[in-house]
Amino acid sequence: MKLWEKNIRVIEPYVPGEQPKVQDVIKLNTNENPYPPAPEVEEAKESFNTDMLRLYPDPDASVLTEELAKFYGLNKENFFVGVGSDDVISVAFQTFFNSDKPILFPNITYSFYCVWADMYRIKYECPKLDDNFKIKAEDYYKENGGVIFPNPNAPTGVLESLDFVEDILRHNQDVIVIVDEAYIDFGGKSAIELLDKYENLLVVQTFSKARSMAGMRIGYAIGNPVLINAMNSVKFSVNSYTMNQTSLFIGSKIISNKKYFEDTLAKIINTREITKEKLKAMGFEFPDSKSNFIFATHKKYAAKDIFEYLKTKKIYVRYFNTPGIDNYLRITIGTDEQMDKLFEALEQYMDK
Amino acid sequence: MKLWEKNIRVIEPYVPGEQPKVQDVIKLNTNENPYPPAPEVEEAKESFNTDMLRLYPDPDASVLTEELAKFYGLNKENFFVGVGSDDVISVAFQTFFNSDKPILFPNITYSFYCVWADMYRIKYECPKLDDNFKIKAEDYYKENGGVIFPNPNAPTGVLESLDFVEDILRHNQDVIVIVDEAYIDFGGKSAIELLDKYENLLVVQTFSKARSMAGMRIGYAIGNPVLINAMNSVKFSVNSYTMNQTSLFIGSKIISNKKYFEDTLAKIINTREITKEKLKAMGFEFPDSKSNFIFATHKKYAAKDIFEYLKTKKIYVRYFNTPGIDNYLRITIGTDEQMDKLFEALEQYMDK
Repeated sequence: MKLWEKNIRVIEPYVPGEQPKVQDVIKLNTNENPYPPAPEVEEAKESFNTDMLRLYPDPDASVLTEELAKFYGLNKENFFVGVGSDDVISVAFQTFFNSDKPILFPNITYSFYCVWADMYRIKYECPKLDDNFKIKAEDYYKENGGVIFPNPNAPTGVLESLDFVEDILRHNQDVIVIVDEAYIDFGGKSAIELLDKYENLLVVQTFSKARSMAGMRIGYAIGNPVLINAMNSVKFSVNSYTMNQTSLFIGSKIISNKKYFEDTLAKIINTREITKEKLKAMGFEFPDSKSNFIFATHKKYAAKDIFEYLKTKKIYVRYFNTPGIDNYLRITIGTDEQMDKLFEALEQYMDK
Repeated sequence: MKLWEKNIRVIEPYVPGEQPKVQDVIKLNTNENPYPPAPEVEEAKESFNTDMLRLYPDPDASVLTEELAKFYGLNKENFFVGVGSDDVISVAFQTFFNSDKPILFPNITYSFYCVWADMYRIKYECPKLDDNFKIKAEDYYKENGGVIFPNPNAPTGVLESLDFVEDILRHNQDVIVIVDEAYIDFGGKSAIELLDKYENLLVVQTFSKARSMAGMRIGYAIGNPVLINAMNSVKFSVNSYTMNQTSLFIGSKIISNKKYFEDTLAKIINTREITKEKLKAMGFEFPDSKSNFIFATHKKYAAKDIFEYLKTKKIYVRYFNTPGIDNYLRITIGTDEQMDKLFEALEQYMDK
């Protein structure tokens, strides 16, 4: 090692799902939405003035926070926006998790949480899910430096009730509790209605899943202005302008189209329920999912083998080589046509 | 203070220049380019398929690193891209400045450096510029945890020669040396040609200034693959997908148009030289600038008063209320027409 290499930070990063460059792939591996974003995107594209690109964007991203405030019936001061919910949660970790006590999150959950904790040198403990992949509330009653969990959880898809979320909040009023609701629109009840009662609650959502805009990188946190201000101070200590002109302009145009949003959700939920029946009939087992993916295992066939086989058929699902979940596949809900091709390939595999 | 507020990070953020929402403003306060981006942007907009927005972008941003590699005659493994050079430098601070010894940067320089250092709890020392705003190389000969300086420096506009840069490198072979070249294209010689000789050199550039794309948020670092890999590991520990689909697509289309790039630069440099003469004739003093701004002071008139007066005329320049430079204005070079309006307003002010 050369001397100049001595102080280079060495860290094990999060590995995102593949973004295959080959064509004609059925991509069920990163929980993207199979339907295009709301038609307002096309109109926004047409009316976007490219001369705007020479100017820095609004550092406060007001056009987005104002539209979000309208949609949720809250104030713009309740919203922090970032480059996807990953950016938002990363800023939240830096802003809120500065205690000497460990933060708490489930042992099976979004695997970025431990990466951020390592990155920012935050201590953490990971209470085990029960045998049905449910979070055990009582594990979160002890003293801690903060709490974060996704609802529905990922990669399991399991939803906890709003009563459950409130129970966690009731037992954790002296730390910040983050509920990561990336998948909430696919069948859950948002914790947003608890914001009035719990000033220490931060809810995180995203444009990447239900709003079909993973490629635009827009996520947001909803919370009381003390939390939002603190996050903005951290953000402004790293990068003044995180949201580019196109995100601000195009992103702000799609929020008000509630009908398109709800129609798209209804289609995905319908396909998900069909998928559950089909997979069950093929012998798969999975916890009930209220998200846009299913976390499935099969007694007879190894998940890794199925994963590799599907890849040869140009069908990408997600496989985690992680102890405890290494015999599971996380399958994103695509269109009905895409899922039919998946079922066909699975049947072929099992017939072999 | 409520108990849940106890562990919230309190930090003094960087304050960016105003992005006024009023119309018809002459905006000479954030060093934007007065000319629109290359015409390829409009073509890229037309051909951009908005359905792409439902998919996550390529986490490796290959389309950008490949085009940059072609432009500079290097390999894509030599490039790291981020959300503006602020994102790039912030990642570089986290990646490279992990020594117990203080990093070094000039006392008058880009004011984000000390914000990042505070944010990431990096010790720093700030050797004083000399009376002509030049960096004193010998101040950087002592043991340190890393070196960063802009060339040309900001907000002074003062350029150091490549010999000077190499002198700093020769004396700092055991740490990472970052040369922040946001303004290099306006008359300086890039340190890129020293990369072969110094493996510990990282050069940072941006699309925000010379390439008229401040609103797209694209910055990049050029260095040997060991440095670039280490930065990517840190980036992938925070956010897998920082560059959205539009940045990747539109950004990649403008790089090869060298003629438009050089023509725009020539126009700005020409206007800058005229501006120097005009300002001198009005009694302003300033270090010679090789950037797209001039850092000017006047013996008779207080900078703050001029700044406030110009604002009433809807002309925005930058004023820093910082000891040592609080009688200076940083004036971005606009079009000839914009600068004529500035001169007119200044003459009016002085005639009063």
